[in-house]
Amino acid sequence: MTLMNGEQYRNSLRKRKPLTVFLLGERVEDCLSHPIIKASINTVALTYDLAHDSNYQSLMTAKSSLTGEVINRFCHLHQNTDDLQTKVKMQRLLGQKCGTCFQRCVGMDALNAVFLTTYEIDQVHGSVYHGNFKEYVIQAEENDWVIDGCMTDPKGDRSKRPSEQSDPDVYVRIVEQRKDGIVIRGAKAHQTGAVNSHEHLIMPTLAMRNEDSTYSVCCAVPADADGITYYYGRQSCDLRRLDESTAGDIDCGNPLFGGQECLVVFEDVFVPHERVFMNGETDFCSRLVDTFASYHRQSYGGCKVGVGDVLIGAAATIAKYNGVLSASHIRDKITETLYSCGIACSASGVQTDAGNYLVDMLLANVCKQNVTRFPFEIARLLQDIAGGLFVTCPSAKELENPETKRIVEKYLVGVQGIDTVNRIKMLRLIENLTLGRAAVGYLTESMHGAGSPQAQRIMIHRMSDIEQKMNLAMDLAQIDR
Amino acid sequence: MTLMNGEQYRNSLRKRKPLTVFLLGERVEDCLSHPIIKASINTVALTYDLAHDSNYQSLMTAKSSLTGEVINRFCHLHQNTDDLQTKVKMQRLLGQKCGTCFQRCVGMDALNAVFLTTYEIDQVHGSVYHGNFKEYVIQAEENDWVIDGCMTDPKGDRSKRPSEQSDPDVYVRIVEQRKDGIVIRGAKAHQTGAVNSHEHLIMPTLAMRNEDSTYSVCCAVPADADGITYYYGRQSCDLRRLDESTAGDIDCGNPLFGGQECLVVFEDVFVPHERVFMNGETDFCSRLVDTFASYHRQSYGGCKVGVGDVLIGAAATIAKYNGVLSASHIRDKITETLYSCGIACSASGVQTDAGNYLVDMLLANVCKQNVTRFPFEIARLLQDIAGGLFVTCPSAKELENPETKRIVEKYLVGVQGIDTVNRIKMLRLIENLTLGRAAVGYLTESMHGAGSPQAQRIMIHRMSDIEQKMNLAMDLAQIDR
Amino acid sequence: MTLMNGEQYRNSLRKRKPLTVFLLGERVEDCLSHPIIKASINTVALTYDLAHDSNYQSLMTAKSSLTGEVINRFCHLHQNTDDLQTKVKMQRLLGQKCGTCFQRCVGMDALNAVFLTTYEIDQVHGSVYHGNFKEYVIQAEENDWVIDGCMTDPKGDRSKRPSEQSDPDVYVRIVEQRKDGIVIRGAKAHQTGAVNSHEHLIMPTLAMRNEDSTYSVCCAVPADADGITYYYGRQSCDLRRLDESTAGDIDCGNPLFGGQECLVVFEDVFVPHERVFMNGETDFCSRLVDTFASYHRQSYGGCKVGVGDVLIGAAATIAKYNGVLSASHIRDKITETLYSCGIACSASGVQTDAGNYLVDMLLANVCKQNVTRFPFEIARLLQDIAGGLFVTCPSAKELENPETKRIVEKYLVGVQGIDTVNRIKMLRLIENLTLGRAAVGYLTESMHGAGSPQAQRIMIHRMSDIEQKMNLAMDLAQIDR
Amino acid sequence: MTLMNGEQYRNSLRKRKPLTVFLLGERVEDCLSHPIIKASINTVALTYDLAHDSNYQSLMTAKSSLTGEVINRFCHLHQNTDDLQTKVKMQRLLGQKCGTCFQRCVGMDALNAVFLTTYEIDQVHGSVYHGNFKEYVIQAEENDWVIDGCMTDPKGDRSKRPSEQSDPDVYVRIVEQRKDGIVIRGAKAHQTGAVNSHEHLIMPTLAMRNEDSTYSVCCAVPADADGITYYYGRQSCDLRRLDESTAGDIDCGNPLFGGQECLVVFEDVFVPHERVFMNGETDFCSRLVDTFASYHRQSYGGCKVGVGDVLIGAAATIAKYNGVLSASHIRDKITETLYSCGIACSASGVQTDAGNYLVDMLLANVCKQNVTRFPFEIARLLQDIAGGLFVTCPSAKELENPETKRIVEKYLVGVQGIDTVNRIKMLRLIENLTLGRAAVGYLTESMHGAGSPQAQRIMIHRMSDIEQKMNLAMDLAQIDR
Repeated sequence: MTLMNGEQYRNSLRKRKPLTVFLLGERVEDCLSHPIIKASINTVALTYDLAHDSNYQSLMTAKSSLTGEVINRFCHLHQNTDDLQTKVKMQRLLGQKCGTCFQRCVGMDALNAVFLTTYEIDQVHGSVYHGNFKEYVIQAEENDWVIDGCMTDPKGDRSKRPSEQSDPDVYVRIVEQRKDGIVIRGAKAHQTGAVNSHEHLIMPTLAMRNEDSTYSVCCAVPADADGITYYYGRQSCDLRRLDESTAGDIDCGNPLFGGQECLVVFEDVFVPHERVFMNGETDFCSRLVDTFASYHRQSYGGCKVGVGDVLIGAAATIAKYNGVLSASHIRDKITETLYSCGIACSASGVQTDAGNYLVDMLLANVCKQNVTRFPFEIARLLQDIAGGLFVTCPSAKELENPETKRIVEKYLVGVQGIDTVNRIKMLRLIENLTLGRAAVGYLTESMHGAGSPQAQRIMIHRMSDIEQKMNLAMDLAQIDR
Repeated sequence: MTLMNGEQYRNSLRKRKPLTVFLLGERVEDCLSHPIIKASINTVALTYDLAHDSNYQSLMTAKSSLTGEVINRFCHLHQNTDDLQTKVKMQRLLGQKCGTCFQRCVGMDALNAVFLTTYEIDQVHGSVYHGNFKEYVIQAEENDWVIDGCMTDPKGDRSKRPSEQSDPDVYVRIVEQRKDGIVIRGAKAHQTGAVNSHEHLIMPTLAMRNEDSTYSVCCAVPADADGITYYYGRQSCDLRRLDESTAGDIDCGNPLFGGQECLVVFEDVFVPHERVFMNGETDFCSRLVDTFASYHRQSYGGCKVGVGDVLIGAAATIAKYNGVLSASHIRDKITETLYSCGIACSASGVQTDAGNYLVDMLLANVCKQNVTRFPFEIARLLQDIAGGLFVTCPSAKELENPETKRIVEKYLVGVQGIDTVNRIKMLRLIENLTLGRAAVGYLTESMHGAGSPQAQRIMIHRMSDIEQKMNLAMDLAQIDR
Repeated sequence: MTLMNGEQYRNSLRKRKPLTVFLLGERVEDCLSHPIIKASINTVALTYDLAHDSNYQSLMTAKSSLTGEVINRFCHLHQNTDDLQTKVKMQRLLGQKCGTCFQRCVGMDALNAVFLTTYEIDQVHGSVYHGNFKEYVIQAEENDWVIDGCMTDPKGDRSKRPSEQSDPDVYVRIVEQRKDGIVIRGAKAHQTGAVNSHEHLIMPTLAMRNEDSTYSVCCAVPADADGITYYYGRQSCDLRRLDESTAGDIDCGNPLFGGQECLVVFEDVFVPHERVFMNGETDFCSRLVDTFASYHRQSYGGCKVGVGDVLIGAAATIAKYNGVLSASHIRDKITETLYSCGIACSASGVQTDAGNYLVDMLLANVCKQNVTRFPFEIARLLQDIAGGLFVTCPSAKELENPETKRIVEKYLVGVQGIDTVNRIKMLRLIENLTLGRAAVGYLTESMHGAGSPQAQRIMIHRMSDIEQKMNLAMDLAQIDR
Repeated sequence: MTLMNGEQYRNSLRKRKPLTVFLLGERVEDCLSHPIIKASINTVALTYDLAHDSNYQSLMTAKSSLTGEVINRFCHLHQNTDDLQTKVKMQRLLGQKCGTCFQRCVGMDALNAVFLTTYEIDQVHGSVYHGNFKEYVIQAEENDWVIDGCMTDPKGDRSKRPSEQSDPDVYVRIVEQRKDGIVIRGAKAHQTGAVNSHEHLIMPTLAMRNEDSTYSVCCAVPADADGITYYYGRQSCDLRRLDESTAGDIDCGNPLFGGQECLVVFEDVFVPHERVFMNGETDFCSRLVDTFASYHRQSYGGCKVGVGDVLIGAAATIAKYNGVLSASHIRDKITETLYSCGIACSASGVQTDAGNYLVDMLLANVCKQNVTRFPFEIARLLQDIAGGLFVTCPSAKELENPETKRIVEKYLVGVQGIDTVNRIKMLRLIENLTLGRAAVGYLTESMHGAGSPQAQRIMIHRMSDIEQKMNLAMDLAQIDR
């Protein structure tokens, strides 16, 4: 089963028990064939197919630190700073190949964060989480799982702590301790790729206090466990996917690939003890959140860079189609700065006590903080270069009627030798990336994925040694201290 | 007929001959009832209804300089710098009230630019355009017309001039001079509110040379003239309008109002002489383009400011709903800077030889240049404050099924006392403004409407007296000159 | 005496009793001949000389609202929005002509703010300040005074209120109430042009509470009053002024003009009642501060724009000297945006109950908020265009020795036909503007003059009607309110 | 001699033949005791002293790849990506310790670039430069030399090539080929630390064509060679150094450390063949310039980060002194982004054919491109936090007179418990960093050192694979290619 390809991955999804998925007011019968969901599954499938492509195997696969087997890098525990850098390079590659969110990073980042945190919990609390989690990782590697790293709770009133909410369920919590396991209730919002996953690895969403101990839970449940319901999130321009004609495809912009986010509701889901990796240890919530967040903030220095490459390419292409010679004001500078941040926090990573490698947490937060800004600027520049036609272009269905097709092709022509339909396709890709379905990932997710800007500001502030810097200034000014 | 209200306006559209409009691959039978088009008509109707609202009459109406009648300000020739400032204030008001493009500015700006340019052409060429145009303005005032100011040609290969294009029709041109008028052919792209208009006032799109004289044409044609076809432009998330349920309404974000852009094709449309205001005078194309552009760049210092007010309000509202105390990082500073630019180019306006007032062209270009940047920053900050839910929120149709409604309301709750549905409505408005249908106007149109950033850069460069500034520097450095 | 010229102004300074001025560890004997001080006096003198220049009289002079006489605009009470706009235009002109701070705005802004505030105090408290102040304004007009608007106290520990400070004197306060007047003690920091003034018009520095009533004082004292000491502030590169050779002149960059700031200490200075304009009315401190600040924040939309013009000119000139064709990336856009803000808050001004005109306070704060940013960007761009030579160029004294002169001229040559010495002069002007004496005014004063950015943010926040904006958003989202 | 300390370094400078140095119109007798020059020598001495400090030896020293000896890292040929990263860390450390430019990087970067380029020249031209250069490196290591990497020519008219200039000497050129060596003439501008060096390693300044072959020269000359003259560059506030009192020290801001730039003139200097490393091979000028520039652009990701740490520390300190609780808007984000760029181009370095390691050239250029922006923003934020007093504070000489000292201390007091003199010292450090002597390095040198922004833009453009990115976009839009 190790190292599935895309088709094997799709089959593995089919083997799950039927999921309860609501989308546009209806229960979805078959996720794999639903036109909206299909595109997001295509994207995940790419992470499997490229692992079999000899051009990319060195990026896409790794040797398991637990079994020695060749595994998909998305299931890998990072063993050194080269691994950390390769992760970023793999993410850039995938961003380039699909132009949207490929949904599998969050599980990889969760695996590494839970691995090191369970080790630390055991050291302090004498628990046995780490051994169980190691077993879980081996299963993940062997089954080549897509794991949904489940962190963000809906949170209700943000000015109140979990235990202070009117409805205690707006954060995932343990509602029952049983002899053989625990029962959890609540929901996780914004779950990337949730419906496309084999597993959910649930983590607490923020630092907890003693009174929040029932909220301090980390555990794994299969995607098809009893009691789980999925509410599929709408995305900008999602309805264009429902039109399966070729013309409709064009108006999708990126016809093959898309992202996915869901609200995942857990109504009294049972979890056996061997799949529970934190159970009330409030003192380690912060550590788990911070390390997961750091890994995941590193990730944005890869994936968004790859998608940024697509935007730069789209800018250059449409400039060429328009007969404008240069598109030099989309600058690689911006996207390579993000990449530098991704590489730097990787190169400066350090070994954890558990044995895997953790990114430099300060630099990883700096990386993500920049991601909350730069993609917006690239998207703005792309809109500048593209001209306004990508928001005023008639429907591709006009191309199905010979008479309207003639007119559209006549008047929307660009430089000689370029097929007008290709120009329209490129305009639609630009719409997709800046306003449409991929903009959700490239812009909004860049802002809020792996934590909002404020979360990074707080961590950067906490991790900066301001006292040491004050000493530097006082020494130079010759002030005794 | 003067000073229609919204309902009278809708009726006046019904009196037009049937238009040929293609939208999503089909010919539209009735524009006024089509769910996508209707929203854009609602927006234009607002410019009529508010003229009858006693709170806003001082902004919305003016006294005609030609007839002394009270007219809608959108038909007015500006008589002083107060008029210019009031125009900006009216546009801010309308942007606030509809949260999108209200489509009627381009006609107002065209009226004022053609008015002063025809006067100047007549002075040089001994023509009689100005008198004819004055008659046209009187009709516009009396009939309270929506005029589509028709400037942007499709342009084909941007590296070539009109007369060098493979297909001569990619710029609107005169194909025949008749005794009683002219015949034109070509198309105009990105025509805001085209289907909602009574008239098209066609202008050249750029400075012309002698060899481009057949392209140097300014004239007026009724929206329902023979030979005109409309290709309705797609907009982000447009299909959500096709779902007429209440739930669908919510997912529209701004259920009532929307914008509109079309590709308008003129296939051998006849124009009688009294409606022709330029016919080959290549030496005045540049003047017409520059003055129109300046008026229209001023406009953006009003309308986008008003929509910006909505974004600021949406940010504060969602922050309150989320239980986050402050949303202070959406700063009025940015939007008020744009407003200042709009006011400043108005306050510094000057009287033209024709008698109406022209904005300070340098400052008007500076205004629009800023508009190509600041709304993007406000939209980014709004996304920051909103949290990610506006792109991952389940469909409003989930609210129609009691069971899914219960879950959605339970988990998407914000602070106590706020109806979850209201929170969802606000999130959808935010999606509409930053990624959806209104983003087309607030972002892309801010970039390209009234000319792309490069167009403003060129004019700013041309209008800056760099020699004088060099002299200032040389004097201070005590360099003899 | 009305409408002095520069020489008459200098004579009027000579008529003052000797001031106690400390500069570089020594007491200054004669301010008018001191090389450092002289340059700042030259700058003020310009405000007198240009009032006699027929090219500029319409900007530089006004008709007194109190006497009907022609007066220098710096002594004028603004009578309409044209006056407010003309003020900004005058400031731009002066910034262009001297390339630094001309020091006289703060008095003009204080006159207008105290004028309207005394009227309001009298209305509430039944006091007679306004009549006395009117008399004072008439004297100011007739004597063509330079008035130092004295607001900023040293403030000690910023986390404490005036009455909580360890040393009560770190804010100016009334230490004695006498039958015929009051006695004040304390100091005012950052006093622009203090030594070059005829008068100090003292105002409170922030909103006061009841316990701070002795700090709620507004009054006027002559610059040569007993008990005043001046501590002259150092400026970047100030020592270059001490070298009076021609070569030294060159290295000054702007040989003729400079700014000035002082710490002004008031040690038990007596003020007769007719010169006291607030005496304990804590409820009006905030109003006085806010209106003065608004007038003064408007000012920055003029003066810094004028200096910005010099920077743009310097950039173009050095680019030409270097043989670089274009310096297009210094954009007028930035400086004209500031100007637009200055004009807009003027054009939107409103009449006060006292009769003079007050700027739109929201827009004036927006103006200054932008001034805390944009000049830094212009200075950065100027450094970009200039090349690095302005910080590595040998001393101009090398030009006095024929052998070193030959080498310097040989190797620092630019394009043919340009005197190398002129190139050096321009480089030194650029150093002056970006790092040297004028940078103090163009950069640091842009940041902190008329209040630091935080002060503007607070006022902008306070003056924005966020409730109204929330209503706009709720209406569009169809949320009942 | 290997691994000198600071005192040994100073002695080694004393052993040079007397240099001809002009400064402020006079020939300098003794560089080591001249107050202006001394500060810059102190800074270089730090690179020697810290190599003996056990806390820093791992950063400051390396094992020679040529001799196996422990050497100062500034003489080291990088052997792997760890070396490249350690270089950046060493530079950050030194920037922190001296708060200005420590002048020794340019030699290190020249050594590495010439090392790899001579190897490549020999491969193509069959020359023997590389062996000679290896010998030179061994001498540099053994003698622990400060090497001035001499690249920038004065350039005259920038629109003309070297051979087109009116005066052929404005670029360094070979004026004579002798049997035993060559004779060079010309000058190098902006030479950092020139007077503090043992050697000049001369390189061409740009890509050369065949007609420029006499300008294609790389060679080494001792700092005290016959025919060399130094023209010491002025720096902002340089004269404050001439006042050697304690009070004067305070006003220097950073009393101990400073930078240095000179115009170095070569008038027919003889260079023996074994010290010539390029002699007319125009085809390798570009390679030498690009690799040197890349190494040096990497350097800015270290040194400016270290100085940035000082600015952040100064901001926090002055905020504390002022009684302002938080200075959170100086964000580590900005400075850590630069550091990330420095680390990333190091971690992505590759081995050259010559054996040493070259940074990732694209990322190194991105690094420097960011350095041309971010320090300006940090400096602006520091000015914001500092308050305006650092530009209006009276002279420290006022502290020498008990009476004026009492007043200054009374009124410039900050929070209780902080010595006012310390507050003044910190303000002067801030002036030094933002407007004074260190601003030259932190701002202007950040702009122009290692090439102006335009140079980086060109290289980034050249190194970006835009075709590949266009293919990505076309694939996603399903356009056949």
